Amino acid sequence: MSDNVKYVLEENRLPRAWYNINADLPAPLAPVLHPGTREPVEAADLEPLFPRAIIDQELSQEREVEIPDPVRDVYRQWRPAPLYRARRLEKALDTPARIYYKYEGVSPTGSHKPNTAIPQAFYNQAEGVKRITTETGAGQWGSSLALAGSMYGLDIEVYMVGVSYRQKPYRRAFMESFGARCIASPSEQTAFGRSVLAEDPESTGSLGIAIGEAVEMATQRDDTKYALGSVLNHVLLHQTVTGLEAMEQLAMADDYPDTVVACTGGGSNFAGIVFPFLGEQLRGGRAVEAIAVEPLACPTLTQGRFAYDYGDSAQLTPLTKMHTLGSGFVPPGFHAGGLRYHGMAAQISHLKDLGYLDARAYDQLDCFAAGLRFARAEGVIPAPEANHAVKAVIEEAERCREAGESKAILFNLCGHGNFDMQAYTDYLAGKLTNLGGSQAEVAMALSGLPSVER
Amino acid sequence: MSDNVKYVLEENRLPRAWYNINADLPAPLAPVLHPGTREPVEAADLEPLFPRAIIDQELSQEREVEIPDPVRDVYRQWRPAPLYRARRLEKALDTPARIYYKYEGVSPTGSHKPNTAIPQAFYNQAEGVKRITTETGAGQWGSSLALAGSMYGLDIEVYMVGVSYRQKPYRRAFMESFGARCIASPSEQTAFGRSVLAEDPESTGSLGIAIGEAVEMATQRDDTKYALGSVLNHVLLHQTVTGLEAMEQLAMADDYPDTVVACTGGGSNFAGIVFPFLGEQLRGGRAVEAIAVEPLACPTLTQGRFAYDYGDSAQLTPLTKMHTLGSGFVPPGFHAGGLRYHGMAAQISHLKDLGYLDARAYDQLDCFAAGLRFARAEGVIPAPEANHAVKAVIEEAERCREAGESKAILFNLCGHGNFDMQAYTDYLAGKLTNLGGSQAEVAMALSGLPSVER
Repeated sequence: MSDNVKYVLEENRLPRAWYNINADLPAPLAPVLHPGTREPVEAADLEPLFPRAIIDQELSQEREVEIPDPVRDVYRQWRPAPLYRARRLEKALDTPARIYYKYEGVSPTGSHKPNTAIPQAFYNQAEGVKRITTETGAGQWGSSLALAGSMYGLDIEVYMVGVSYRQKPYRRAFMESFGARCIASPSEQTAFGRSVLAEDPESTGSLGIAIGEAVEMATQRDDTKYALGSVLNHVLLHQTVTGLEAMEQLAMADDYPDTVVACTGGGSNFAGIVFPFLGEQLRGGRAVEAIAVEPLACPTLTQGRFAYDYGDSAQLTPLTKMHTLGSGFVPPGFHAGGLRYHGMAAQISHLKDLGYLDARAYDQLDCFAAGLRFARAEGVIPAPEANHAVKAVIEEAERCREAGESKAILFNLCGHGNFDMQAYTDYLAGKLTNLGGSQAEVAMALSGLPSVER
Repeated sequence: MSDNVKYVLEENRLPRAWYNINADLPAPLAPVLHPGTREPVEAADLEPLFPRAIIDQELSQEREVEIPDPVRDVYRQWRPAPLYRARRLEKALDTPARIYYKYEGVSPTGSHKPNTAIPQAFYNQAEGVKRITTETGAGQWGSSLALAGSMYGLDIEVYMVGVSYRQKPYRRAFMESFGARCIASPSEQTAFGRSVLAEDPESTGSLGIAIGEAVEMATQRDDTKYALGSVLNHVLLHQTVTGLEAMEQLAMADDYPDTVVACTGGGSNFAGIVFPFLGEQLRGGRAVEAIAVEPLACPTLTQGRFAYDYGDSAQLTPLTKMHTLGSGFVPPGFHAGGLRYHGMAAQISHLKDLGYLDARAYDQLDCFAAGLRFARAEGVIPAPEANHAVKAVIEEAERCREAGESKAILFNLCGHGNFDMQAYTDYLAGKLTNLGGSQAEVAMALSGLPSVER
């Protein structure tokens, strides 16, 4: 029986600008460094990869960055996304806490990723780009960019980690249904791919290799650029549309979150829901407890070091100061592909270092159990990534029950699990195990951090 | 680039009553006959299977049947569902036609099925039922009833056609995630299942066998009833929420459909979107062209006979006067599981017989090609069933272009294809073929129709 409440924002209340937290940071971000010179990267260094508008956003200090009308036109297909008061879950947990969730599973690809894929495709098309290359692991980002490409008439070339390409044929079919090309990485298409295959013809690939191939194809063709689905400032910026909407929807509910929770891989989902609220706090407004949740098997914020590191395991990208497990860290094979990243977005790492957010790590069995409790109360099976946030929310709500504390908890249900039923099949069949922490591997990977004198 | 329009109905405009077309039929339906006595079935005959409220609805002649508040509370999670003006598709087709689609893929199971699963679970729970049994083929209906069971605290037991159970483990995991039991049929759980297995231990099962098992388990336990996902009057009634919403949303657009299109398996999706408009016409209001679209390989309305027949291949159900291919007809293995039914809902068959609707049949390659054209313009991959409607809409829109005719076409995009990527994988790999008509098989199955003197 439901007395859930859905807060629907009228379409004309869809935000007109994204929120850029750079404008409100109490101390500036450490500069991003060129991997060769170790000098700060400049706009010109990024031009082979990104259109000007994206580079401007990456470096912008403006608080509000206008969302172009053609982007809002596509956003409107599923946005504003609903915000739910999860009264059924509250009842199941017998908690005095008020639980709200923003639901990003309503997008055509079932996650928050199109929030940045759409504007990235738009800016590329507006500057005459014909083709975008990218990499994808589990496939959620590649699917979203494929969708965006079909909206703006761009060719999309997705280098998909070889092992996932073979294990997830449906993801490939999804991208191809939207007209994208999906290539198993390492491939014969690039010099880098050929060199990897020459060394190991059986290579299963990695995100690092796929990035290398996508970047090579972008830099070698004049009509081609590259796109990334998380980590960078402009990606986090685009995701703030979720938090901005949620803020308005909570005002409809005459409420404000005491606690905001999201899972963190590269960080864009977390930033999207949390930054607008953290920005209020940084400008002297109401404070929130921001909780980033990560897998115990890839504990970037909870066990990583705040240091300069490469963004990829091939060590080709610029050096960014961030929480990192070391670019050589290879997380074990848990079922939340979107959270398998050794580093964390610079903005989030910086705020963590300044004490503005908490981080927690959970093992996968606890997360799946929490996800099923959520599904049976709320009617939606969360993506395995989102289960991490659900686990933290349930823990908070149970703590509230024990303490008799009523507070408002907001979290981002960043995607549904309908594409992840293999994970649930394995979980229900008792085939999954906890993976534990990875202290030894983390220590080893951290020992390989580049030495940067800054 | 999008100038699509989304028509969002405010939540307080969610319909308060379903529309019952029985009240407006120009001639009454032929009675449903008891398979043993061949006398009209009475309410008491149905009581072992259904709760009183459902039986009342099955037999009701009232035009409006109130939607209970606890059902509207759950509907509100995803309803009112959006209606889109598909301007991007119109542009891609260069057509003067105005194309609108109602999108039922926003439900938690990605199709229109919860529209009836939710009220069926509600009425059972309200009458003290503890358990509902049902059958499922491809799994969409079983998933929706599993969801509904979790909302109302009912045990759900789904007999899934054995071959699908083994081919579609994700569907089973989906049902189990909501706490339902999913049993491969034929099973050892029922006398009927055991008898089938005794004869053929390797039986792959069929919908007819699964119905037999589900019905047996319902009739043998006092706390257990049975539920069906299409065909019956009360199921079609519940689906009218889609057409009623669409009518209001088209009024927001200051438009009215000249043509309404939907795919038809058992008929509930078609009835849902079409009946409210057909009702207007039957009461002397504006006329619509109603087009039912079916697979050429299961051409119930286009090649079937309007005659009394059994609802299942085991010939255990009551006899219904309907368009049928013969209950012995086994359609070939095309990728639109929801349209593999030998019969058609009595109300739809009756209206077809009276000349109130047109029917068309298409082969599967044309439907998938149409689905991909839709996906690339509109950003949503349709379910293979929905591709049939899309194919007819594109054909109509192209006819409008050639004739220079501007008209409004409404169709129901009854589900997304995210659970059907195997079908798209096969299509994109060139592994699908057209299946052609099945004239010989239809003729043979029709020759086995029961002889009913009425």
